[in-house]
Amino acid sequence: MNIAILGCGTVASGVCRLIAKEREGIARALGEPVVIRKILARTSAKARALGFGEEEICSDMAPILADPTISVVVELIGGTGDARTFVEQALRSGKHVVTANKDLIALHYGELLALARENSVSLLFEASVGGGIPLIEPLRQTLALGGVRRIYGILNGTTNFILTRMARDGMGYADALSLAQKLGYAEADPRSDVDGLDAGRKIAILATLAFHSRVTFGDVACEGISAVTETDVAFAARTGRTIKLLGVAQRQEDGVTAYVRPALVPNAHPLASVSDAYNAVFLQGDAVGDVMLYGQGAGAMPTANSVLSDILRAARTAPVHSDPFYEDLPVRDEGGESVYYVRLLVQDRPKVLSGIAGVFGEYGISLASLVQETRPGERAELMLFTHAARERDLRAAMEALLARGDVHGGCAMICLEEKT
Amino acid sequence: MNIAILGCGTVASGVCRLIAKEREGIARALGEPVVIRKILARTSAKARALGFGEEEICSDMAPILADPTISVVVELIGGTGDARTFVEQALRSGKHVVTANKDLIALHYGELLALARENSVSLLFEASVGGGIPLIEPLRQTLALGGVRRIYGILNGTTNFILTRMARDGMGYADALSLAQKLGYAEADPRSDVDGLDAGRKIAILATLAFHSRVTFGDVACEGISAVTETDVAFAARTGRTIKLLGVAQRQEDGVTAYVRPALVPNAHPLASVSDAYNAVFLQGDAVGDVMLYGQGAGAMPTANSVLSDILRAARTAPVHSDPFYEDLPVRDEGGESVYYVRLLVQDRPKVLSGIAGVFGEYGISLASLVQETRPGERAELMLFTHAARERDLRAAMEALLARGDVHGGCAMICLEEKT
Repeated sequence: MNIAILGCGTVASGVCRLIAKEREGIARALGEPVVIRKILARTSAKARALGFGEEEICSDMAPILADPTISVVVELIGGTGDARTFVEQALRSGKHVVTANKDLIALHYGELLALARENSVSLLFEASVGGGIPLIEPLRQTLALGGVRRIYGILNGTTNFILTRMARDGMGYADALSLAQKLGYAEADPRSDVDGLDAGRKIAILATLAFHSRVTFGDVACEGISAVTETDVAFAARTGRTIKLLGVAQRQEDGVTAYVRPALVPNAHPLASVSDAYNAVFLQGDAVGDVMLYGQGAGAMPTANSVLSDILRAARTAPVHSDPFYEDLPVRDEGGESVYYVRLLVQDRPKVLSGIAGVFGEYGISLASLVQETRPGERAELMLFTHAARERDLRAAMEALLARGDVHGGCAMICLEEKT
Repeated sequence: MNIAILGCGTVASGVCRLIAKEREGIARALGEPVVIRKILARTSAKARALGFGEEEICSDMAPILADPTISVVVELIGGTGDARTFVEQALRSGKHVVTANKDLIALHYGELLALARENSVSLLFEASVGGGIPLIEPLRQTLALGGVRRIYGILNGTTNFILTRMARDGMGYADALSLAQKLGYAEADPRSDVDGLDAGRKIAILATLAFHSRVTFGDVACEGISAVTETDVAFAARTGRTIKLLGVAQRQEDGVTAYVRPALVPNAHPLASVSDAYNAVFLQGDAVGDVMLYGQGAGAMPTANSVLSDILRAARTAPVHSDPFYEDLPVRDEGGESVYYVRLLVQDRPKVLSGIAGVFGEYGISLASLVQETRPGERAELMLFTHAARERDLRAAMEALLARGDVHGGCAMICLEEKT
């Protein structure tokens, strides 16, 4: 089987190495070898370094599209510019597409899949979420069959590394981020990770498959971890919980919700012990019950392994022609009620406490428990758990609180009440 | 798509209910509905109770084999008697077979797959290991591609329930077993579970797929949990570990080993927090790194969901015709070296300790640490960790120790040293 690889970065080089290393096993499994006929690279130096000759290297799609022996195009460029154009061209030319591109799938899955169906080819993206964790195909083939109620998980290794260091070593957010950057877990501009955007793209993809409905990145409300402090992490530990950045998609009676938010996870929950750069997805289904899939969410070789599995799948499996959005559920802004943890920095003066409780009361939010810790100077930190409340009400209450002269800042976090 | 179901037990009834409940989704996914044309039942009462009419119920294979519109036979009888015969007949008649039968696959996978290949049909068994956990297909399609070094896990819910209760509630083995029986987690005759045979069948199946080699139930050395005492569980907890019954399959330079044994798992390992009747499989691969798949290892609906995924897979995926045993690794008795935990009941007399240490020394086993706890009366309990030792040497040393008049019993457990 002949394939073309688009891109020459770390994942592409991992795929090339893996295909070389597992040549015999692949040939046995597939009945024929996988041959990389073409590699598309902006500059040919990198491709030459991977051992490709000039006749295999190309800088545009023409030679790939013109080669009828190439049946699979593997897109490892990333982003939604060239990558999108090239993927569309490949599908239109009747070639299966395998991609690791979460940006592309989170935004354009519907259009691309329609194009794949028109041309009777497969569009496969196991590597787009969760790196080496088998996630997309188990979800598509097995877990989404018997009704998914909720799918949520730790989808970003950078933020999980930071939160793990904060919890385990008592580091502050800024120090943990610096360490992550030093060790190569975070980029120089870390915003896509720490603001929850990377996790947002991934939960959009998982929600789409879990609920057979169109959920795109634009539907996901993303909140990152930059507001999480040592105080929050320590308070969570004292109450038997761990702070994790979760991507969450939830089936509701009349729609779905999807968001990314820091959450307090009970320590007995399997997600609480997912540490460092590991990822894990937890799913609650009507038929399957609870399932968790755990592993390395990034890295050249884990991701390459998922890409290779898609290449073989393209060869062995008939393209899926069914409507992927048949449930057609609307995406709702508002989730149900949750218990929230709130931290407020307040003036340490008599009557401040009753004033704050009064504001929560005005918005229909009752408080379950409250701890005040006085800091040097005039300010005090107030940590509290609400009873079940709606996010909209809580946000309105927070706004009203922050408008007061005696409240100087705050942070709200949802508290998962899921069983182990 | 027309199918036939063999058997009328809890999983079969789960499959019937799930197909009815998800009728619309299945039709959307597959492009046509799944129709249960025939159900094979020893007595028709159960099948009638599931809503089948007399024309659908049969007591032998003839009407199923004679119906060319039936493309998939779903075997849910269990065991290796009738089930084996019926599966062979179905394959010979050119029908895909979906089965949840671990006994059958753990013993006869090779022959059955050869028959499937001869007849160009699929043999699928996602539900045979790990109930609702997507395990067989992710292993086959993705995880086994890039080289598996080790696959191990908690494969039996009954024993995990018992060990969880011993650890969490301080129950003794007998009491925890009684509770498991009362709650329906253990059968009246619990031997297949507590002696590790059920887990042994499952690790044989996983090893076969992970290593592309023939590993059958007969190759698996099975040790159960009936020798595990409250003392062991408490001692494990004091050293930051949890006792779990693990099925383990390990790639070695010149072969594979597979066994089932109680093991001390460090509390930071993801398997340590898999509690109650949950199952989980942990895999270490060259390319994918660490992966864990977790979920409900049994139960009618989780298992039915896996069966249904196989039914749809049979319709959508070309049968795999490659040699499943191309690595052809021999199965070895002996694993590498491990650290062992050993508990001995000894006469509490001077010189006993040095005598025991001397016996270990004779067999080349050095001791890393040792704790003695005196019991009322003359006996004392000795808990020790060895340095890395070979199982064969340890077993010989234990035999020599038990032959001494001052050692009254013992229990040996492997101590996993895996990272988190």
